[in-house]
Amino acid sequence: MRGLTFALVGFGTVGRAVARLVLSTHATLHLTHIFNRDVERKRVDWVPGDVQWTADIDDVLTSPADAIVEVIGGLEPAGAWVTRALEAGKAVVTANKQLLAHHGSDLLRLAAARNRALRFEAAVCGGLPVVRAIGEGLAGDRLGRIAGVLNGTSNYILTRMESAGIGLDEALQEAQELGYAEADPTDDLDGHDARAKLCVLSRIGLQQAITPDQVACATIRGVTSHDFATARRLGCTIRQVAEAEQDVNARVVRCRVGPALVPLDSAFSRVVGTQNVLQVTGEFSGETAMKGLGAGGDATAVAVVSDLLAVAEDRGAGPAARYAAVDAPLATTDRLPGPWFLRFTIRDRVGVVADVAHVLAVHAIDIEAVHHEPAGTSAGIPLAITIAPCDPHMLERALVEIALLDFHVGPPLAVPIMR
Amino acid sequence: MRGLTFALVGFGTVGRAVARLVLSTHATLHLTHIFNRDVERKRVDWVPGDVQWTADIDDVLTSPADAIVEVIGGLEPAGAWVTRALEAGKAVVTANKQLLAHHGSDLLRLAAARNRALRFEAAVCGGLPVVRAIGEGLAGDRLGRIAGVLNGTSNYILTRMESAGIGLDEALQEAQELGYAEADPTDDLDGHDARAKLCVLSRIGLQQAITPDQVACATIRGVTSHDFATARRLGCTIRQVAEAEQDVNARVVRCRVGPALVPLDSAFSRVVGTQNVLQVTGEFSGETAMKGLGAGGDATAVAVVSDLLAVAEDRGAGPAARYAAVDAPLATTDRLPGPWFLRFTIRDRVGVVADVAHVLAVHAIDIEAVHHEPAGTSAGIPLAITIAPCDPHMLERALVEIALLDFHVGPPLAVPIMR
Repeated sequence: MRGLTFALVGFGTVGRAVARLVLSTHATLHLTHIFNRDVERKRVDWVPGDVQWTADIDDVLTSPADAIVEVIGGLEPAGAWVTRALEAGKAVVTANKQLLAHHGSDLLRLAAARNRALRFEAAVCGGLPVVRAIGEGLAGDRLGRIAGVLNGTSNYILTRMESAGIGLDEALQEAQELGYAEADPTDDLDGHDARAKLCVLSRIGLQQAITPDQVACATIRGVTSHDFATARRLGCTIRQVAEAEQDVNARVVRCRVGPALVPLDSAFSRVVGTQNVLQVTGEFSGETAMKGLGAGGDATAVAVVSDLLAVAEDRGAGPAARYAAVDAPLATTDRLPGPWFLRFTIRDRVGVVADVAHVLAVHAIDIEAVHHEPAGTSAGIPLAITIAPCDPHMLERALVEIALLDFHVGPPLAVPIMR
Repeated sequence: MRGLTFALVGFGTVGRAVARLVLSTHATLHLTHIFNRDVERKRVDWVPGDVQWTADIDDVLTSPADAIVEVIGGLEPAGAWVTRALEAGKAVVTANKQLLAHHGSDLLRLAAARNRALRFEAAVCGGLPVVRAIGEGLAGDRLGRIAGVLNGTSNYILTRMESAGIGLDEALQEAQELGYAEADPTDDLDGHDARAKLCVLSRIGLQQAITPDQVACATIRGVTSHDFATARRLGCTIRQVAEAEQDVNARVVRCRVGPALVPLDSAFSRVVGTQNVLQVTGEFSGETAMKGLGAGGDATAVAVVSDLLAVAEDRGAGPAARYAAVDAPLATTDRLPGPWFLRFTIRDRVGVVADVAHVLAVHAIDIEAVHHEPAGTSAGIPLAITIAPCDPHMLERALVEIALLDFHVGPPLAVPIMR
C-alpha cells in the first residue's frame, strides 16, 4: 500500500478528530490541506507546518491530493464539491448522510464512472461499522429487513426518561446541556436524522434507493413518562426505531421512523444513551445485530479514517457501482400490520373504554389489553390499549373515529409494538 | 464491475451452498470449475453444463479463473494450493481458519506481493461479518481487546445444559444427532476451533500475529449442570469465551479460550444455540458488539460470496498488506487477574471450607463468596468459591496446594468471571 494524500474539507468536531487520529496513528495517510470557511479562526498548532490551510475550495479541488474528506454536512455546497472532486479524479470520503440519502444514486454513479471511491462509513452510526458489515460483509445475501435505533440524541432522551422518570422537555434540556442535542432538536426528535440513515442503509442492504420523502416520520415529542410506566407493565420500553422491510409480494417497502414499543429483553431496549443498534435479517445469514457508539467526534473519525485506509488499499471505485445500480422502490408505506399500542389522554367519565372498544370492534380490531387507572390529574387520565395485528387501513379509520369522541383532553399516541 | 470467474475447491456443505447462492442470485460471478477428490460422487444436476468438474487440482490452478474458493479445510494440501493459486495470479477466498491461524503471515505477504486478494470472512463466525467490521470498518482505530463466543458447537452444548438442566454428555450427544457436533468433538469442546478464530481476529483487530500454540485452551468438559445452578445464584451463566487483550505496559497479550462465568445481563449470556457474539474495545470507537449466525453452510456461503464480490470490485490485494505487516507478540499469557470462580468436588467432612480458606489466605487471595450445600451424592459435594481479582501466580500456587488436600473426589474447576 503506498501512501495516500488527502484534504480535509471542514474542520469542525469530526474534522479535528480525523486530523488528530491520522497524525497520531496512521503514517500512511498524509494530510495535505485543511479547508474551512474563515479558516484563520480554526488554525491549531498541533498540525504540521506543511499542511496548507485554506478558505478557498479551489485550492483543494485543483490540488494533487488523492482524496477529500467531506465533513461540512448539508446538501450544498457539499454536493457540488463532492461532484467536482470525483470529476477531478479524487476519491471522496464523506460523513454526510443527507447528501447520500438525497443524491446517493447520482453521486455513486459518478464515482463508478470515474472509477473512484465514494465511501461513507461515517454517514451512518458513527463508529459502528454498519456500512462495511451490511454493504460488504453481507453483500452476498438478500436482506429482507433492517431495523435500528439510529439516532443517539433521541435515544439519550428516551433512555433518560425511562431511567429517571422525567418528562421529555427535561430530558431534552439535559441533552442540550451535555452537547448531545442541538438548540433546534427537530431533526433528531422528529426522525429526520434517522430517516436519512435508513435511506442509506436501505440502499446498501435492501438494494432499494429510498429517498427521505418516501419515509414517514413520527415524532417522539408526544411520548410521556407515564407511557414508559405503561410500557414497562407490558414488558416493554420505548425507543425511536427506524425500520425498512421488503414486502416482495406486495412490491412495497414498509418503512417508518418513530417511537415504538420494544420488548425489555430485546437488543433495542438495551441500547442506552447515545448508543446505536442495528438488526438485519438475511435470507441466508439469518439475524445479525450490531451495537456501538453511534455518534461523537472520535468514533466518527474512526469511520472516516477506516474509509481512507480502504481508499489507500483499493484505488478503484470499490462497491460504488453496486451501490449505484439499485432500484427505487415501486412504493413505500408506513402502514405496519402491528400489533399497536394506543394511548389516549382522557377526561374520565363512565363509558370511555366501552366507546373506544366499540369503534375498534366495528373495524374488526382485536383488543389485547386495556390499562386504565383512574388516578389522573387535571391534565387528564391516560387510557392505554394494546391491539393485535390488524389491517392498517382499518386502524387508521378507527383512530379517526375515536378522535371525534368527546373525552380527549390531549393528543393521542399510536405506536407499533416490535416483535 | 466486470464479471469474475472463479473455481470452487471443495464441494462439501459450504461449497454446495456457495454454488447454490451464486447460481441463484449473483449474475456477475461465474463458476467455472468444481474441484473435489473423487468428484464423480459429488456431481449434482443443478449446476450448469459448462462448469467443469475435476478431481485434478491442476485443472483449476492452470485455468484462467480469476479466483479460487478454498473450502476443503485443513493445513495441507490447502496451504500448498492457496500458495500456488496466489503465485498464478489468482485471488483466493478461503473459509480455512486453521490455515490463516498457522500460516497467515506468509500467505498474506504472498498475496500482497502478487497484488492479489486473500480474503477470509468465512473463516471466522460464518455469516457474522466480523472480518469486514473489525479489519476494515474499525481499521482506523486502535483496538485493545477482543472477546467473543466463537464456537457454535460448544455454545449449543452449554446453552442446552443451561436451559434443560442436562449434563454435558447428554447435550453433546444431542448436538451430534443434530449435526452440530462431529463424532470427535475435541476441536470444539477443548477450544481449538475458537482458538484459530481468535488468532485471525487478533491479527486483523489487535495487529498481533498470535499463533495457536501461544493461546492456552481450557476444555469445557469439566463443566457440570450443577455449576450452571451455582453460576445462576451469582447472577451469571457459563460460556466458552475466547479473549485477547493487549497489555501495552507489560508488553504481553493476555489470551485464553475456555469456560468463563458471564453475567446474565451481558451479551455473552444472551448468545444461544449456534450463535456467535463478538465484542471489541477501541481507543476511539469504544465498545462494539456483533451477534449472529456463526456457522452453517448457508451463512458461511454468504461470507464467501461477499468476499467474491469484494474481489470483483477490487482486483488488487485489498487489506492483505496491512494484515501481513503485523508483529508477533513478545509474549502471551493466560493468567488473568480475575475475579475467579473455583469449584471443588469434595467428600464432606468438618473443616473443608476452613482448609481451603486458609490456603487462599496464605496466598493473599480474597474470598468473595462460598457456596456449599451439603446435599451431595456419593459422587461428591460441590464446594464453590468466588475470589476477588488477585495475582494470577499466587492463584496458581494456591490451586496446587489445594489439590494436595485430602477431600477431593473429582477434578476441580477454575474459570474466570467476566466483567
